[in-house]
Amino acid sequence: MDPRDSVRVGLVGCGFMGRTHSNAWRQAERFFPDLPVRPILQAVCARNPDEVAGFAGQWGYESTETDWRALVDRDDIDLIDIASPNDTHAEIAVAATAAGKLVSCEKPLGRTVAEAVAMVEAVEAAGVANMVWYNYRRVPAVTLAKLLVDEGRLGRVFHYRAKFLQDWTISKDVPQGGPATWRLDVDVAGSGVTGDLLAHCIDTALWLNGPIGRVSAMTETFVKERPDAVTGELRPVGIDDASAFLARFDNGSLGTFEATRYARGHKALYTLEINGEHASIAWDLHDLHRLQFFDHGDEGRLRGWRSIHVTDGDHPYMKRWWVPGLQIGYEHTFVHQAADFLASLGGGEPFHPTFRDALATDRVSDAVLASAKSERWETVAS
Amino acid sequence: MDPRDSVRVGLVGCGFMGRTHSNAWRQAERFFPDLPVRPILQAVCARNPDEVAGFAGQWGYESTETDWRALVDRDDIDLIDIASPNDTHAEIAVAATAAGKLVSCEKPLGRTVAEAVAMVEAVEAAGVANMVWYNYRRVPAVTLAKLLVDEGRLGRVFHYRAKFLQDWTISKDVPQGGPATWRLDVDVAGSGVTGDLLAHCIDTALWLNGPIGRVSAMTETFVKERPDAVTGELRPVGIDDASAFLARFDNGSLGTFEATRYARGHKALYTLEINGEHASIAWDLHDLHRLQFFDHGDEGRLRGWRSIHVTDGDHPYMKRWWVPGLQIGYEHTFVHQAADFLASLGGGEPFHPTFRDALATDRVSDAVLASAKSERWETVAS
Amino acid sequence: MDPRDSVRVGLVGCGFMGRTHSNAWRQAERFFPDLPVRPILQAVCARNPDEVAGFAGQWGYESTETDWRALVDRDDIDLIDIASPNDTHAEIAVAATAAGKLVSCEKPLGRTVAEAVAMVEAVEAAGVANMVWYNYRRVPAVTLAKLLVDEGRLGRVFHYRAKFLQDWTISKDVPQGGPATWRLDVDVAGSGVTGDLLAHCIDTALWLNGPIGRVSAMTETFVKERPDAVTGELRPVGIDDASAFLARFDNGSLGTFEATRYARGHKALYTLEINGEHASIAWDLHDLHRLQFFDHGDEGRLRGWRSIHVTDGDHPYMKRWWVPGLQIGYEHTFVHQAADFLASLGGGEPFHPTFRDALATDRVSDAVLASAKSERWETVAS
Amino acid sequence: MDPRDSVRVGLVGCGFMGRTHSNAWRQAERFFPDLPVRPILQAVCARNPDEVAGFAGQWGYESTETDWRALVDRDDIDLIDIASPNDTHAEIAVAATAAGKLVSCEKPLGRTVAEAVAMVEAVEAAGVANMVWYNYRRVPAVTLAKLLVDEGRLGRVFHYRAKFLQDWTISKDVPQGGPATWRLDVDVAGSGVTGDLLAHCIDTALWLNGPIGRVSAMTETFVKERPDAVTGELRPVGIDDASAFLARFDNGSLGTFEATRYARGHKALYTLEINGEHASIAWDLHDLHRLQFFDHGDEGRLRGWRSIHVTDGDHPYMKRWWVPGLQIGYEHTFVHQAADFLASLGGGEPFHPTFRDALATDRVSDAVLASAKSERWETVAS
Repeated sequence: MDPRDSVRVGLVGCGFMGRTHSNAWRQAERFFPDLPVRPILQAVCARNPDEVAGFAGQWGYESTETDWRALVDRDDIDLIDIASPNDTHAEIAVAATAAGKLVSCEKPLGRTVAEAVAMVEAVEAAGVANMVWYNYRRVPAVTLAKLLVDEGRLGRVFHYRAKFLQDWTISKDVPQGGPATWRLDVDVAGSGVTGDLLAHCIDTALWLNGPIGRVSAMTETFVKERPDAVTGELRPVGIDDASAFLARFDNGSLGTFEATRYARGHKALYTLEINGEHASIAWDLHDLHRLQFFDHGDEGRLRGWRSIHVTDGDHPYMKRWWVPGLQIGYEHTFVHQAADFLASLGGGEPFHPTFRDALATDRVSDAVLASAKSERWETVAS
Repeated sequence: MDPRDSVRVGLVGCGFMGRTHSNAWRQAERFFPDLPVRPILQAVCARNPDEVAGFAGQWGYESTETDWRALVDRDDIDLIDIASPNDTHAEIAVAATAAGKLVSCEKPLGRTVAEAVAMVEAVEAAGVANMVWYNYRRVPAVTLAKLLVDEGRLGRVFHYRAKFLQDWTISKDVPQGGPATWRLDVDVAGSGVTGDLLAHCIDTALWLNGPIGRVSAMTETFVKERPDAVTGELRPVGIDDASAFLARFDNGSLGTFEATRYARGHKALYTLEINGEHASIAWDLHDLHRLQFFDHGDEGRLRGWRSIHVTDGDHPYMKRWWVPGLQIGYEHTFVHQAADFLASLGGGEPFHPTFRDALATDRVSDAVLASAKSERWETVAS
Repeated sequence: MDPRDSVRVGLVGCGFMGRTHSNAWRQAERFFPDLPVRPILQAVCARNPDEVAGFAGQWGYESTETDWRALVDRDDIDLIDIASPNDTHAEIAVAATAAGKLVSCEKPLGRTVAEAVAMVEAVEAAGVANMVWYNYRRVPAVTLAKLLVDEGRLGRVFHYRAKFLQDWTISKDVPQGGPATWRLDVDVAGSGVTGDLLAHCIDTALWLNGPIGRVSAMTETFVKERPDAVTGELRPVGIDDASAFLARFDNGSLGTFEATRYARGHKALYTLEINGEHASIAWDLHDLHRLQFFDHGDEGRLRGWRSIHVTDGDHPYMKRWWVPGLQIGYEHTFVHQAADFLASLGGGEPFHPTFRDALATDRVSDAVLASAKSERWETVAS
Repeated sequence: MDPRDSVRVGLVGCGFMGRTHSNAWRQAERFFPDLPVRPILQAVCARNPDEVAGFAGQWGYESTETDWRALVDRDDIDLIDIASPNDTHAEIAVAATAAGKLVSCEKPLGRTVAEAVAMVEAVEAAGVANMVWYNYRRVPAVTLAKLLVDEGRLGRVFHYRAKFLQDWTISKDVPQGGPATWRLDVDVAGSGVTGDLLAHCIDTALWLNGPIGRVSAMTETFVKERPDAVTGELRPVGIDDASAFLARFDNGSLGTFEATRYARGHKALYTLEINGEHASIAWDLHDLHRLQFFDHGDEGRLRGWRSIHVTDGDHPYMKRWWVPGLQIGYEHTFVHQAADFLASLGGGEPFHPTFRDALATDRVSDAVLASAKSERWETVAS
């Protein structure tokens, strides 16, 4: 990649993820002042002219577009940042790549493995830098977990466990489709919790514990019909409301995974745990600034799970923020991702997860959905 | 059942479970002084004469036997309490029943469904009172959970989750067989964690959430060979070290279950959680005196998981013990079970779990082991 | 002390503490079968003949008395165990000692320092073994804390913090006096939370952190009048409902202490924390089976408070009970105390806390009450 | 105050607090896009030209100054934001006010009550808007606590408890004076933990529970000499390392307060708890996104402390951020404060805490230090 001083960002989408990305680009510059490449909020694109104008004003974008093709065609854009619904990812990414842009894309990469493969082939053929916003890798506590794994602290791994529990769709009145609830519309989203929540669990799992070979899954749609967000008429729900699977990792460990939007009392409870021969690790998105760590090497009488408040200067990313004891939150994971990506553009360490990394997650999701349908163990394609 | 003032107990086995049962019978009388039927520790049986004599002295048994058949033949014994390894359950229970004794049996009921069926048929044909020591039903917090379920507090149930995590067999040096580690010997135990730990999870699940229809399971034996406890020679390990399964309950809810002895950092972490439409419940054996409860009916801004310290006089069993805030422990669950069984003998409420109840658990365990082998979903026999 | 095989216990009082003591003597024999001296529940004494008969039947006492003087006069009693209200402690203890009995006494030792001094002088003059039931020293987690302190793990201590929070007297309708609420009657109790709850905090503090030199205190009586438990007529409340004090320990550390029965939401929340140069310790009666431990010597990135589940065989007392992960409760602290006392009678380690140890606590309580009245710092007498 | 569209901010100080303020002004505009008055980062002032230039570049200030007097003299500055060490607060604030500027000031207001009084008189005489950065009032969980108090949910209050525990000065090698450790230099800081940490506890307490009438305090300096940050020579330490006090609130409740930098294992553990007749509240800076709430009005069997994850749209400030379950952190409290202050300038609700509010805190701190010296109860001046 050629060295550059700045990257002119063209954002597609001004919903929830548009906000997190915009904040990430902005804050990266303030809290990582030594970045070799700085982001410039050049343009934002969304279909509604008023909405996009308001968004641009709020976040400091210099111009707007209402057609993503126009954005992709602009010469003054270096990076297309895709924060629009899942059904647009592939088309935009492929077009952006064809136009020589760098590409960052919200997760999941594609609605299907086929879409994801096309996207990977496009970025790799073009040789452009690319990334997928699996932001939870850059929760400092999760990054610390990765360091411990890589240092061999856990020894042989026996178990990996992950869940992502929400409860926002229990009411039958929540509609499907439309800007706020497109995630319930299978045509737009591709799948339900599998591509939305489980995908996060899978991405982190592959990163921390290596490839998954085989899965046995079940899915369920608890509410079979929901009103259309636009017409109000009841129509069948095509997504999975809940998804769980058993997994065998290539390293011999066993995995259990679950995601649902029907776990009353849990808002966004992404939890993971790894049990190794020498040590275990656990983490929880509801208290994302803590890592639970058990070290069997500790003196016997004094062994216990340590609740590590991951806010010290020697914890990943934390010297960028405040002082020990003062926690950061959700949005910071995106800031870290933006900063690391910009650093990689300036010659720093190669950035992950790339499109190719995210394809691996899509392959697992695909096997999960296939297994739920076939009621058999399915092998994850590689 | 005929009314009686007392029950003369003949205990088989003086290992860990022999101690818990003995303590249960003794403490029941002190803390439930209104029991219509009181237990008399009449005799204890174990093969080693010195060991059984010491045990009898310690626990106050009036006599000893070294052959369980002799115990069963005695006229001065009303109840045979089976606390010996799994491979003895069926034979003793059937013989005891034939001798007209009441029977209480450690869990799991049989090593196989076939054994369990024979045991159920025996007690039901004889019409004798019987029970199985699935003690965790009588943790006050778990009993409270049952009350809440029965009162309809949860509404439609979407999810049931249970795990039982231990870490005591990670070392390859732990032998198999012998008094202390017969649980690792498949011939004696029947299975590994499935019959040992998962059986507890299944019993509670069936009690709280009704029948399980189908399962998809995986098991693993991480350490393939272990020294024999007697000879010291390496021989293949036949038990499952870890077992996990997906389940579909008859009420439409999804279940995920897992048990292992390879979860570093967890000693006996039996956890369960139920997510219903209106409320959720969670519990954890490591803090067994607490129930976590989330009520969606609470005022929105103030909704949160309540940590209920189940030590008040209006909590199940707790008026028998101390004052609010002062917790009880593991052994008390056996005391409650003994007291409830004795009360039922005196004309109180019918006691559960019976042998028949425990057979249902064995059927699920059986389907789990079958599914792990077949790599398919298996239907639970009924 | 002369060696003996057994100690014939004469218990005074059959209320809450009578139950805990009775259970302790009984269970000590079962769970500490190697005790050189075994307890015999010889007699129990209470004023109401029916009540004491029922109690004796329930707990297995061989005989009853309705006048403690008669009990003290009996030749077949070796130990007088005082579990009656505070206003009886001194008179009974002094008489028992005069009769050559061993004496164990509920805490606090006396209602006043004057009473306590008389009691200490009596037992020391007679040379009889004696103990006070400050049971919380023998919560395994607290005993472990003591071991860590004694091993020098904490280094120089900077802070000691303790609180004992309850909420059972908030309602103005709770009466004073009578068997259930004599603790609210200053004539019987001597003081309110200072002698009841703070006394526990002080005893543990002196044990773990050494002598307290000076205190500054405040007390409050939130409800000024309560109905008499017998007559129902309102009369002034003489006890302290809440009591807090600042302390300077002789080792240079600072202490903060608080006790109240007006802390809504807390049933019996006795918490303590010690902050040392190298390590810190915290404990909480509501989860009494856990010790929180922070070791600054841990690797920087991985420092965190360890939640130690104090249920392993190498934890104090725990090899006597079940297996790792299975918790014990409140009553076990009394069992441990009974066992340790009996072991000391048989030539084991000297037992603490003695009457003299408990006098030290009374002296601090006395200084606390004096300071609350004088509104000045008071020096603790020695 | 005259209406205006924007406020041109002149920041004094580019240390830790300079960063938090700068971020607050910047983020307020993005996350509160409806603010009637927007902040403009006009100038920043610090003595070191290179440092201030770097800071201005990083944070987007349009110009720099190296003498605060020059900043105060500039016509293009509307608000002087004081983020420099305590010994500069009074002089800058008074000068800024004399120049007709609005003033915002880091806490504590003055090093002494005398300084604080002068500052209050200055802003009130000039009639300029003013505020003090007691940011913890605007942690959403703490703001929610305030709403509950104001709604009368707690009923009569019995107890207020607050602690602020750190451990960063335990090593004797930490120097005093200099940019990083001026807080250890009594001439610059005015006091130690009393003005630094306790001041936060006091501000929140006065806000949530009303005036404090009297206090009895103790302070300690554990390390008596430290190297000077510049010269390296040992010189006496004049600050308090630890400070604790008992308090009587005007509403009849009892308070206990403590702050220290010698609590090994705690980085910035600010905790508070209020016990009322009907309900209790607790909060903890280490998990700042949670509020603990106990409601005695809940059904008896199901009462428990609720752990409220304060991340829903109906929680204070949270609709400005992400979606339920996604937490915010420390810096957001400053953003909220900036936004509320700007809103008040545009005609919104009057802003608190003002200089006058902060003076009340200084008066309590003053009484605390006086009491620690006099060893008597001191009355808080009003």
